[in-house]
Amino acid sequence: MSKYDPNLDQCFSALGDPTRRLILQRLARGEASVSELAAPHDMALPSFMEHLKKLEVAGLVTSKKQGRTRTCELAPDAFAPAKKWLSEQSEIWEGRLDRFDDYVKNLMQERQK
Amino acid sequence: MSKYDPNLDQCFSALGDPTRRLILQRLARGEASVSELAAPHDMALPSFMEHLKKLEVAGLVTSKKQGRTRTCELAPDAFAPAKKWLSEQSEIWEGRLDRFDDYVKNLMQERQK
Repeated sequence: MSKYDPNLDQCFSALGDPTRRLILQRLARGEASVSELAAPHDMALPSFMEHLKKLEVAGLVTSKKQGRTRTCELAPDAFAPAKKWLSEQSEIWEGRLDRFDDYVKNLMQERQK
Repeated sequence: MSKYDPNLDQCFSALGDPTRRLILQRLARGEASVSELAAPHDMALPSFMEHLKKLEVAGLVTSKKQGRTRTCELAPDAFAPAKKWLSEQSEIWEGRLDRFDDYVKNLMQERQK
């Protein structure tokens, strides 16, 4: 069973916003400057920077400053912890159903004897 | 590219809270009554019910009332939309890296000629 992981709070909360998911979808295609990332969003720059900050704090995005340009990219294995948690729960859930299937099959076989 | 899906807002936001993830982890092991679910949490019942409501609105949990007992279970394929979004982004990201690998390999081969 997954232990409590505070990073998952930040990660899933960061993913729960459409602007932030669009930023991640853009960065999955390759690194981009802050102004490139902000361009499609009808939003004041400080609000946009707040979204970027949440993605950085959640460990989903990294950024570096070169001269006057800040470039962002997807963090390596950004989605791994979220995918791991979801897969673990699905496996437990599906394992439970498999065991129930086995139980019903055994019951049917016992009755046919 | 994933279209904007408002259900993902609710789903990921619901997952961004430790109490709600613990409820889901419990339900992955099988259905439970509200009082069974609430027992391990040091929380007033109305606050706990708010968490359950968020999980239901997000389509992660279903519940039914039998007599005086409300029983909750994990919704079928509860985690599928979240897993799908994460996998799509990972595949695009990894595909980009693969294409970059191919580009470097081709460049090296050209230089060796």
